[in-house]
Amino acid sequence: MEKLIDELRNIVGMENLLTQREDMITYSYDAAVLDPVVPAAAVMPENSQELGQIVSLCSRTRTPLTVRGAGTNLSGGTIPSGESGIVVLTGKMNRILEINEADMYAVVQPGVVTAALAAEVEKRGLFYPPDPGSQAVSTIGGNVAENAGGLRGLKYGVTKDYVMGISFFDAMGEHVKSGSRTVKCATGYNLSGLMVGSEGTLGVMDEIILKLIPLPRARKSMVAVYGSIEKASETVAAIIANKIVPATLEILDNFTIRAVEAYSRAGLPVDAGALLLIEVDGHPGQVEDEGTEVEALCRKLGAESIKVATDDSERDKIWAARRSALSALAKLKPTLVLEDATVPRSKIPDMVRELQKIAAKYKIDIGTFGHAGDGNLHPTILTDKRNKEEWHRVESAIEEIFDTALALGGTLSGEHGTGLAKAPFLEKETGMSSIIFSRRLRKAMDPHGILNPGKITGDV
Amino acid sequence: MEKLIDELRNIVGMENLLTQREDMITYSYDAAVLDPVVPAAAVMPENSQELGQIVSLCSRTRTPLTVRGAGTNLSGGTIPSGESGIVVLTGKMNRILEINEADMYAVVQPGVVTAALAAEVEKRGLFYPPDPGSQAVSTIGGNVAENAGGLRGLKYGVTKDYVMGISFFDAMGEHVKSGSRTVKCATGYNLSGLMVGSEGTLGVMDEIILKLIPLPRARKSMVAVYGSIEKASETVAAIIANKIVPATLEILDNFTIRAVEAYSRAGLPVDAGALLLIEVDGHPGQVEDEGTEVEALCRKLGAESIKVATDDSERDKIWAARRSALSALAKLKPTLVLEDATVPRSKIPDMVRELQKIAAKYKIDIGTFGHAGDGNLHPTILTDKRNKEEWHRVESAIEEIFDTALALGGTLSGEHGTGLAKAPFLEKETGMSSIIFSRRLRKAMDPHGILNPGKITGDV
Repeated sequence: MEKLIDELRNIVGMENLLTQREDMITYSYDAAVLDPVVPAAAVMPENSQELGQIVSLCSRTRTPLTVRGAGTNLSGGTIPSGESGIVVLTGKMNRILEINEADMYAVVQPGVVTAALAAEVEKRGLFYPPDPGSQAVSTIGGNVAENAGGLRGLKYGVTKDYVMGISFFDAMGEHVKSGSRTVKCATGYNLSGLMVGSEGTLGVMDEIILKLIPLPRARKSMVAVYGSIEKASETVAAIIANKIVPATLEILDNFTIRAVEAYSRAGLPVDAGALLLIEVDGHPGQVEDEGTEVEALCRKLGAESIKVATDDSERDKIWAARRSALSALAKLKPTLVLEDATVPRSKIPDMVRELQKIAAKYKIDIGTFGHAGDGNLHPTILTDKRNKEEWHRVESAIEEIFDTALALGGTLSGEHGTGLAKAPFLEKETGMSSIIFSRRLRKAMDPHGILNPGKITGDV
Repeated sequence: MEKLIDELRNIVGMENLLTQREDMITYSYDAAVLDPVVPAAAVMPENSQELGQIVSLCSRTRTPLTVRGAGTNLSGGTIPSGESGIVVLTGKMNRILEINEADMYAVVQPGVVTAALAAEVEKRGLFYPPDPGSQAVSTIGGNVAENAGGLRGLKYGVTKDYVMGISFFDAMGEHVKSGSRTVKCATGYNLSGLMVGSEGTLGVMDEIILKLIPLPRARKSMVAVYGSIEKASETVAAIIANKIVPATLEILDNFTIRAVEAYSRAGLPVDAGALLLIEVDGHPGQVEDEGTEVEALCRKLGAESIKVATDDSERDKIWAARRSALSALAKLKPTLVLEDATVPRSKIPDMVRELQKIAAKYKIDIGTFGHAGDGNLHPTILTDKRNKEEWHRVESAIEEIFDTALALGGTLSGEHGTGLAKAPFLEKETGMSSIIFSRRLRKAMDPHGILNPGKITGDV
C-alpha cells in the first residue's frame, strides 16, 4: 500500500494526494443511505495524462478505483470499494475545453460543474438542458456516469440525449475514443452510449462532447394550487394527453409543501393538497398558446387557483422553492431516503394513490414530489436509521414502492442510477438474462474488477 | 448442413424457409458496392418464440447468422458471412404491438416498415421523426441496427435518439431486456444504447420501444436557387450560426439537379449551381418567423430566387424531388458509390470545396447532395466497377474523402454505418485502442462469432 501511495504521489504530486483519516472519511459516503467505506487514498489529477497514469497504475497493481465528482449521487455509485481502493477526484479537471457556437457543441472535462457549463453556454444564446436537482454542485462527469435527469426531462430528455462523444481510459489504461463532434455519427459501436449510466465501471472519462441547442426565446412559469393530490396528478396526465409537453411539470404534495414553507418561507399555501409547478418555453407564440391551454386544463381539472409568474424574479422564486424540497425534507428527520421509482406518465395518478397506501400500511412519513411530467416521482421517506424497528418497515416500504412501479409498467430508477442501493433489486426489472449479459460484458472489459467494483450488477 | 436446414424447417415451417439458389442470390448483397456472398438458407420467423429458437439453434451449431430487414443499408451490414451462414428475414415480424398516445411511445417488432410506423402515429397526432432516405421500404429493426439518420437529423436527431428500450436474443439465445416504457430510465447498463448501431453483431432484436413526440402544428418548405454551391453551403452555415435549426436543410449540386430533372421532370432549374431545400416546422408563429428569417438569410447570401411551397402538393413535390436523387443518379452509370462522410456543419463550405478538388484530381464524377444542415453530405461517385483502372481511381478518391472529413473534425460515417465497407478505415477515426476495446467487448458477448461476423470491427 505504501508503494502505491508513493507512486500516486509521483504522478500527481504531494498537493494532489490525500491520505489523512479525516479526508478519507469525507470520501467514504455519498448521498445514498448506505454504510460508509473508507478508501486508502484520494487523488486529484490535473489533466488527462495524470488521469491515464493513475488508471494504468491501478490496472497494474489491481487497485480498485472509484471516480468521484461532487458525490451527490443517490444510489451509492461513489462509495469506495474498501480499504485497498482509491478515490479519483475530478475536481481539478474542470475546464470547459471548447464551446463551439457555429456547430452547437461543447467539449468539457469531467469535473466541470453542471450549472457552470449551463451558464457559460447561455451567455452565447445556447442551451444545455439537463438540470439535475444537484446541478449547482454536480459535475458533468458524474451526470454522464449516472445518466442524470432533472426537471426538464419530459421535453428535453436526460444527459444521455446530449452526449455526442466520450473519450476514456479503459481498465487496461488504454485511451479509447468514441463518438464525434458531428450531429450524426455511425462509425463503430456506440461506446459513448454504453458509457452513459455505466457508473465508472467500464472506463474513466477524460473528455466529453455535449450537444447544445438554441436557447428558447421565451418561457412562462406558473403554480397551480389543488385541494387534493389526485386532481393535481390527473392534470399532469391530461396536459400530456393534450399533446402539450411543458419544459417542466413538477408536483409537490402537502407534506412537502409544508416542509418547504417551514424551511424557506416562500409563501406556499400550506393547506393545499398539492401544487403543480409548470413552465412552458419556446417561441413566444407557442409559450402564449401553451400557457393558456395549460391554465385552462388546470382549472378544468380542479385547480383552486393559478398564479403565473409575471417576471424573472417571480419565476426564480417558484423554482427556488421546488429546488429546496430535498433540503427542506432533510431537516425533518435524521435519515432521508429519496426514491426514484418511475412510471409511464399516464400512471402518475395510480402511483400517487399507491404511495399513500404504502405510507399508511407501514406507518411511515412519505413526502412525494418530483418530475410528474415524465413519470419520475421522488417519494421521500423520512426516518431514523438507528430505530431498527422503523428502518425495517422502511425497507419493506421501499421494496413495495419498487414492485408497484414495475407493476405499473415503470422502472426502479428514473435518474438516480443503480449503484449499490438498487443492484439487489435489478433482477426484478430486467430478469436474470440481462444481468448475466451485463456481467459478462463487464468481466470482459475489466477482467480484474478494478473499476468501481460492486456497482450496478453486484460483484461480477 | 442438411440437418441444420431440417431443424430450421421444424422451427418456422416449410413456407418460411428459403433455400433455392435464386432466393439465395437475392439475399447475397445489399445496397453497398461489395461482392455478393451467397448464404445457405434464409428463414422468416413469425414471432419472438421462433426467432429465439433460431438464435439458439445457431448458437448450438455455431452457424453464422445475419439479420436482414429491407437490405437497403449502404455499408454491407446485411451481406451474409458465407455458405455456412444463414439469413434471418424480419419481414414477417412486422407488427406494431402498441401505440400509446397518453405516454407517447410505440412498441414494434423489427420488421415494421419505417414509413408505415410514421403514418400510423401521425394519424394520432404523434410524430416519429427519423426519416432515412429509404423509409418507404426500410425497417425499424434495420434503422436501429444501423442507427439510421435521415433528413430531419439536425433538428430531431437520429434513430438512437428515439430508442427507449430493446429486447433481444443474445449469442447464447438468452432473451435480454433493456430500457423501459418510461421517459427516464437509469436502471442497469444502457444496453439499448449499445445495441443501436451494433449492426446485428451483439444480439437479435425482437421488440423495440420508440419514443414519439407531438406532431408539429405547422411547417413551411422552400427551395432557394444559387448560382454556385459555395454560396449555398455558406448559407447553410449562416442559418445555424443564427441559431435557427430547420427541420430539414438539404443541398443538391448542379450534377445532382440535372440528374434529378432528367429522371423526374420536377421542373428543377438545371442551370442552377446548387439548390437548398429547406423546411421549418413547429408552432405556427415560429414557422412564420423562422421562414422569414431563413428567406432573408438566403437572399443575403446570394440566392437568385426562392420559391416557398404554398400548399401540401407543392411541398410534397419538393421533397419527392429530393428523395429521387439517389435513384436519379443511379440511372447514369452502372456503379454508384454513395458516401456518407460527415463534418461539423460549419465546415460544409470547406468540405464542398474539397470534394470538387477530389473529383477533378481523380477525374471522376461526383454528385453531391445530402443533409447539409447536419454536416452529413452524400458525395456520390458514379462509375463502372468493371473498369478496373477507373475503379482504382475511385477507391483512392474515397480514401481521400474520408481523410478530408477527418481532417475537418468529422467522421467516416454519419448515418450509413460501418459494416464491411468501412471496417478497414475505422482505425483512421477512432485509433486502435477503440477497436481493441470493441473487439474485446464483441468476443465476450459472442465468443463463437456467430452474430453477423466481420462487420464493424472486422474479424474478432
